[in-house]
Amino acid sequence: MHEIKALIRDIPDFPKNGIIFKDITPVLQDPKAFKKVIDLFRERYVNQNIQKIAAIESRGFIFGAPLAYALNIGFVVLRKPGKLPYRTFREEYELEYGTDAIEIHQDAFEHGERVVLIDDLLATGGTALAAANLLQKAGAELVELAFLIELSFLNGRAKLTDHNVFSFVSF
Amino acid sequence: MHEIKALIRDIPDFPKNGIIFKDITPVLQDPKAFKKVIDLFRERYVNQNIQKIAAIESRGFIFGAPLAYALNIGFVVLRKPGKLPYRTFREEYELEYGTDAIEIHQDAFEHGERVVLIDDLLATGGTALAAANLLQKAGAELVELAFLIELSFLNGRAKLTDHNVFSFVSF
Repeated sequence: MHEIKALIRDIPDFPKNGIIFKDITPVLQDPKAFKKVIDLFRERYVNQNIQKIAAIESRGFIFGAPLAYALNIGFVVLRKPGKLPYRTFREEYELEYGTDAIEIHQDAFEHGERVVLIDDLLATGGTALAAANLLQKAGAELVELAFLIELSFLNGRAKLTDHNVFSFVSF
Repeated sequence: MHEIKALIRDIPDFPKNGIIFKDITPVLQDPKAFKKVIDLFRERYVNQNIQKIAAIESRGFIFGAPLAYALNIGFVVLRKPGKLPYRTFREEYELEYGTDAIEIHQDAFEHGERVVLIDDLLATGGTALAAANLLQKAGAELVELAFLIELSFLNGRAKLTDHNVFSFVSF
């Protein structure tokens, strides 16, 4: 995992002053590193009887979709409002200023399907908690929330104490 | 491919009146169908000496990322303006009203790398042409543009005559 951590690039003052953005694109562009991340997720879940992978638009798709493929199970997308065309459930969450929301199709799951939620980054946990609530609203059994990167100084886990949380790389 | 086409769901009047939206989420949620799509793309490119898969935010990521994983090669993202944190190239394109743009990191490719661009849908071809131009600006050799779905009545191929274009399902 050290070699993957070394590929994550710090971009100072993005998207605004004082923020150090964790740029994952060098991980994606490196065939060995990208494969290794997906294979490590796969190893973690292959014997857990997981029935669907869910992921949050849009960087979550980059890890969630290959993981679903590697596990040979279905893939479910959580998207920004107005993007999903069929009947949806919605979950709102607070931002620093104002609110945002994510949506899921109402037919995403059979009731009680065992699901892992994948995203690239756990920060304050606001989006992750909304996603967890949304998956439960849609009838999933949420087995774990899994992230490539966790910004542990932001203590996102404190919002997610009702759930299993896993990350590969912590800063 | 018939079974995949049968899973693509028509949503009338989305995102606006008179448009029939092609909803791919039932394909993603079906393990066999999702795996088959990725495996068919893989078979097409596995012996073509492709070095990177590129894909357009955000539905393109759903097919491009698993394909890169399946081919054991790197993955490059094309994103909406302001999303990529490092130095970027940008390509603007016209919409029905106004313009939009996509960006790519300047270090996405070694010069001359053989690249396939993946997206879920070829419609009028405006975004696809911008993506093709952007990949060439970034130093890639664009081997083919590949889509799950082509809306052939919109004749997007007419904008892409300088490129190889492939799609699995046509409406």
